[in-house]
Amino acid sequence: MHAYRSHTCAALTADNVGDTVRLSGWIHRKRDHGGVLFVDLRDHYGMTQIVADEDSPALPIFEGLRVESVVTIDGEVKARAEGTTNDNLSTGAIEVFARQVTVQSKADELPLPVAGEQDYPEDIRLKYRFVDLRRETMHANIMLRAKVISSLRHRMEAQGFTEFNTPILAASSPEGARDYIVPSRLHPGTFYALPQAPQMFKQLLMVAGFDRYFQIAPCFRDEDLRADRSPEFYQLDFEMSFVTQEDVFQTIEPVLAGVFEEFANGKSVTPAGEFPRIPYRESMLKYGTDKPDLRNPIEIADVGAHFESSGFGLFEKIVGGGGVVRAIPAPGTNEKSRKFFDEMNDWARKEGFAGLGYVTRKQGTFGGPIAKNHGEDGMAKLYDELGLGDNDGLFFAAGKEKDAVKLAGTARTRVGELLGLIDANTFKFCWIVDFPMFEFDEALQRVDFSHNPFSMPQGDMEALETKDPLDVLAWQYDIVCNGYELSSGAIRNHRPDIMYKAFEIAGYSAAEVDENFSGMIEAFKLGAPPHGGSAPGIDRIVMLLADEPNIREVIAFPLNQKAQDLMMGAPSAVTKDQLRDVHIRVIQDAVKTEDVNKEEFAPGAGGSH
Amino acid sequence: MHAYRSHTCAALTADNVGDTVRLSGWIHRKRDHGGVLFVDLRDHYGMTQIVADEDSPALPIFEGLRVESVVTIDGEVKARAEGTTNDNLSTGAIEVFARQVTVQSKADELPLPVAGEQDYPEDIRLKYRFVDLRRETMHANIMLRAKVISSLRHRMEAQGFTEFNTPILAASSPEGARDYIVPSRLHPGTFYALPQAPQMFKQLLMVAGFDRYFQIAPCFRDEDLRADRSPEFYQLDFEMSFVTQEDVFQTIEPVLAGVFEEFANGKSVTPAGEFPRIPYRESMLKYGTDKPDLRNPIEIADVGAHFESSGFGLFEKIVGGGGVVRAIPAPGTNEKSRKFFDEMNDWARKEGFAGLGYVTRKQGTFGGPIAKNHGEDGMAKLYDELGLGDNDGLFFAAGKEKDAVKLAGTARTRVGELLGLIDANTFKFCWIVDFPMFEFDEALQRVDFSHNPFSMPQGDMEALETKDPLDVLAWQYDIVCNGYELSSGAIRNHRPDIMYKAFEIAGYSAAEVDENFSGMIEAFKLGAPPHGGSAPGIDRIVMLLADEPNIREVIAFPLNQKAQDLMMGAPSAVTKDQLRDVHIRVIQDAVKTEDVNKEEFAPGAGGSH
Repeated sequence: MHAYRSHTCAALTADNVGDTVRLSGWIHRKRDHGGVLFVDLRDHYGMTQIVADEDSPALPIFEGLRVESVVTIDGEVKARAEGTTNDNLSTGAIEVFARQVTVQSKADELPLPVAGEQDYPEDIRLKYRFVDLRRETMHANIMLRAKVISSLRHRMEAQGFTEFNTPILAASSPEGARDYIVPSRLHPGTFYALPQAPQMFKQLLMVAGFDRYFQIAPCFRDEDLRADRSPEFYQLDFEMSFVTQEDVFQTIEPVLAGVFEEFANGKSVTPAGEFPRIPYRESMLKYGTDKPDLRNPIEIADVGAHFESSGFGLFEKIVGGGGVVRAIPAPGTNEKSRKFFDEMNDWARKEGFAGLGYVTRKQGTFGGPIAKNHGEDGMAKLYDELGLGDNDGLFFAAGKEKDAVKLAGTARTRVGELLGLIDANTFKFCWIVDFPMFEFDEALQRVDFSHNPFSMPQGDMEALETKDPLDVLAWQYDIVCNGYELSSGAIRNHRPDIMYKAFEIAGYSAAEVDENFSGMIEAFKLGAPPHGGSAPGIDRIVMLLADEPNIREVIAFPLNQKAQDLMMGAPSAVTKDQLRDVHIRVIQDAVKTEDVNKEEFAPGAGGSH
Repeated sequence: MHAYRSHTCAALTADNVGDTVRLSGWIHRKRDHGGVLFVDLRDHYGMTQIVADEDSPALPIFEGLRVESVVTIDGEVKARAEGTTNDNLSTGAIEVFARQVTVQSKADELPLPVAGEQDYPEDIRLKYRFVDLRRETMHANIMLRAKVISSLRHRMEAQGFTEFNTPILAASSPEGARDYIVPSRLHPGTFYALPQAPQMFKQLLMVAGFDRYFQIAPCFRDEDLRADRSPEFYQLDFEMSFVTQEDVFQTIEPVLAGVFEEFANGKSVTPAGEFPRIPYRESMLKYGTDKPDLRNPIEIADVGAHFESSGFGLFEKIVGGGGVVRAIPAPGTNEKSRKFFDEMNDWARKEGFAGLGYVTRKQGTFGGPIAKNHGEDGMAKLYDELGLGDNDGLFFAAGKEKDAVKLAGTARTRVGELLGLIDANTFKFCWIVDFPMFEFDEALQRVDFSHNPFSMPQGDMEALETKDPLDVLAWQYDIVCNGYELSSGAIRNHRPDIMYKAFEIAGYSAAEVDENFSGMIEAFKLGAPPHGGSAPGIDRIVMLLADEPNIREVIAFPLNQKAQDLMMGAPSAVTKDQLRDVHIRVIQDAVKTEDVNKEEFAPGAGGSH
C-alpha cells in the first residue's frame, strides 16, 4: 500500500464498504460521543468521517492531537448507520473505522480556526495565510481563480492565440501610474521598472510578426490601495494583427462568455455574439456612466425640451442657461411614501449635488412640487413620451451636463437597488464603443486627447484632416460587466503620419512626439501591421464570479491594504551590502519622520529632525 | 471580404486556383524579372508568392516599397508554371497575381536584414528585436518556447496539478544568490525582493492543503551573466503533498519525456518510467560528475587497488597516501597516434591538473610508460576487469579523490567528444539520487550540510540519531538531461523536531534555527503534510530542444549580457520625484567612478572624487 494514502478524502463511497484503506489529511473536527470519537479528516479533495472506539489504538492518539494535525489512518470502510448518512458529502454514505494512526505533523494551538469559517481580522488571516487558505471559502476561491485562468488559457489557445512571456524587469515610463523601480547593480544610478502592463511589448510582438498574442500577465502599480486594487495584479493581455474592431469583438466574446458560463454557477450570461455595443455618448445619456450595469432596467432620458418653458422655473432657467434635465424613472413606486422620495433628495445633497427633484404618480395622479408647477398636461405628455405608467415615479437630475449625468447615473443605480430591480442572478456584458478621440479641455481652453492618444481615429487621416476634432471618434472600446469595466482596448494607431497629425491637433509638435514616444514610432517605421487588442482584468473576473467585493479574497498570498506581506515580512530592511551593491542609500529623515503612519505620509514634507 | 485578409499567407493551395483572394503581410523579398515582379509575402503563418506585371497597378507600388513594408494584396490565385513549384512551401503550388495593393505600413531602411538570416551583432539584434524576431530561426525558437510551455501546462494539468501564481513582490532572504530589491513607498527604508524561486510559497501552499501545485514561475537572480543565464528566467515549479520520492519520479517523468518527445524533432528520448536512478556516489565515480551525459558510453572505473603495489611508483605512492586512481577508457583508439594521447595529457595540465596518464593498446599490445612499468600481466588483468578489448586505450586520473574525480569527469567528456562517441540524436535523462545529507567541511573542520538543509533525511529521525552523519542520505534528487542539470528537488523536511536535530548535527543551535527559519518552522507547527517537488528550468529545456547554446536565442525580449534592454532602454535614470517617492537616493561617487566599465566595477572601492 502507498505510504500515505490508498484514496483521497473525497473518494470513498458505499462501493468501498469492507475495503481496507489508508487516508491522509488534516483533522478538521473531533466529536467525542462517549467512548466513540468521530474525526472529520480533510484533504484538498474532500472530507471523510473517521471513527475510533475504545477497541482501537487510534483513540488515545486522536485524543492527544489538536485539530489541524496531519495524520495517516489505516482502517476499514463501513456503511454509516441509517439516518446518519450525509448527502452533502461525496463520502457521506460511509465512515472509516480507524485501526491505526500515524502522526505526520502535530498542530500547536491555532491562531485562527479553520472549521466553521468565522469572520476573523484580516491581519491575522494574512499573517497565517497558510491556515486561512484551508478554510472552505478561501480554498474554493483560490481554486476558482486557478480554474478560471486555466480556462481562459485553453479558450485563447482554441482561438489561435499563443502565450508569450514579456519582461518583468522592464523600462520605467513617465506616463501612467507610479512604477515600482528596481535599482541596477551593473549600471549605477539606473533602474528597471516593473511593468504596469506589457502594452509596448505586445505591440512590438505584433510588429515582430506574431499574429495573435496573449498572456496571463502580471502587472504592477505602486498606487494607494483600495478593496479592488492590488499592487500586483493580472490581466488577460491580448493583441491581434490585421484585425478590425469587429474582429476583436467576435474573437473575445466567446472567451469571456464561455468562461463566465463555465463558472457562473447557474447565473445567466450574455451569450457570445450578443454583447450590446453602446456608443459612449449614448451610454452617458442612458446610464449616466460609461460603465453601465445593464442588470438595472432603468434608462435615463434627456427631458430638457419639456422644460424650455415650464411652470417649474428652476428647470426652465437651467435649460435656458445651457444646462440639461435628465429623468430617472422609478417604476412601480405608487406604494412608496413621500419619505422614500425625500430621502433620495437628501442622499443627492449629501453626495454633493444640488438636489434630486421628483414627481410621484399613484393610480395616475401626479404629486410633488415639480408636477404641480409644470402642470398635469405637461407631465402626462412627458410620461407618454418616456413610456411610463400610472404608478411610476420620476426623478430629475438637472444642472450642468457633467454634473447632471453623474447624478443621474448614481441615482439610477440607487433607485434600482432600493427598488430591488437589479437581477443578482445574471452577468450582463456590453461593449462601450465610439469614444471621442478629442475633448475640449476647459482648464487648458484647448482641444486635448480624451482617452488614449494611441488609438486609431475612425476614418483614419481623412477624418483628422476634414472633421471638427470634437466629432472624431476613436476605434476604442471598453468591455463592461455588471457595471464594472473589465478592460479598455483599442485598434492601435500604427501609422506614424496619423500619429503626428493626431498629436498636432492636441497641440503637440512632431519634435515632442519624437522625444516622448520615439520607441514605438521608430518601430512603426520598420513595417507594422494594423493591430488591436485589450486586457480584461483577471482579478476582477474572479471577484465577479466568486461574488467577493475584496480583491484579497481571490489572491492566494496578497499584500495587505498597506502593501505588506505580513506572513513573509515584506517589505523589510535589507543589509548595507545589498544597498551598496545597487548604489543606493536610504533617505534617513524620511524613515524617521514618515515611517510612523501611512496616513501621515507626505513625501517631501519631512523636516531635518 | 475582410478588410485585411481572406486567407493567411500559408493557406492557399492548388485547390484555390481561380479564387479571388486578399492577403496581408510583410514584403519578405522582391525579385524583378524584367517587367514581372515577384514578391514573397510573409506573415506569421507562412509565405505566398505574389506576382505583378506591367498590366497591374500593383507593379509601381511594389517598386516604390522597401522590403518589410506591410501591404494588403487583392488578387487572383494562379497555378505556378511547371518547374517553378516549390515543394518546401505549403503554398508552393500557386502564386497570387496582384490586382491591387494597399500599403499598410511603409518600411524605412532596415537596421538588419530579415530574409537570409545572416549573422548579425547581438547588440543590433537586441536593439531592433522586433525586426530580429521576424527572422526564421528566431520566430521558430520563440514559437517553440511558447509551445513547450503550453505543453508543459497541459501535461501538468493532466497529472492533476493546479497552477497558482505566487507573489513577485516578495520578501528578501539572506541566503542564495543576490536579490533584486524594490524600494517601498509606503514603508520608508524597506524593500521588497523579486523571488529567486517561489520555494517558500509553494511549500506554504502544501501546508495550506493544496495537493498538487505547479507554476510556470518567473524567477530573478541578480548574478553575473553567462550564455546560459538570464536575470529573469522561468522554471516549471511544482510541489506535491503526501508523496514519496518515487511518486515524484513517476509523476514527472511522463511530463518531461512527453514534452521532449513532442518537440524532439525525431531525436530519441528516454521513455517515461525508464529514467535511470543513479546514486550520487556512483555518479561521481562512473561519470566524474553529478550531471552525467549518458549519451557518452564511457564509464570511469576506480582502479586504485591495481596499483597498491605496482611497478609504476607514482600511482603506488598516490594510493598509499590515500589518493585514488580512476581509469577512463578510450575505446577503439588503436589507430590513434601517440600525439592524440599526449595532447590529452597537455590538455589536462592546461586545465590545472598534474597530468593525465595513459596506456595505449593496439592489436593486444600495450604501450606507454605506465604499461611498461606496471607490467604486461598487470595491465591485462586490469583490462579484463574493465571489460576492455585489444584496441582500447585507457587514461588515468590519479591524485586526491576530489581532483581525480573532476579530471576523470572532464576527460571522459573530452574523450567521448574527440572519438565521436556522443550521440547527438538523443535526449538521455537520469535522476541523481541519494545525495549525502552531510559532508565534512575541510576548511571548518566539522560536519556541515552538503547540499540542502531542508531535505528530509532518509530514515527520518532514527537515522539522525543512530547513524554516522556522513552516512545519512537525503531524499534529494537532481534531474539531468544530456549532461545538464534541469533541476534539483527533494522530499522536504516538514518536521520541526527532525529539522532541529539536523541543524544540531551541522552545528547550529535551536535558537539559530528559529532566528533564521522561523517562518517555515512556525508554519510546520500548525499541521504540515509530507511533501516534495522540484523545478525544472524552462529556458534550459527550450535551449536543449532548440539546440541553442545561448539563452537569449530562446527569449523574446531578453536582457543582454550586461543586463540591459537595448530596445526599451532599461535600466535607465529615473526622476528625482521617483527616487524621493521611495525614499532613496543614488550614491553619487558610485556613479562617477563605476559607471564606466562593468569589468572595473568594484563595490565600495570608490573614492570621494
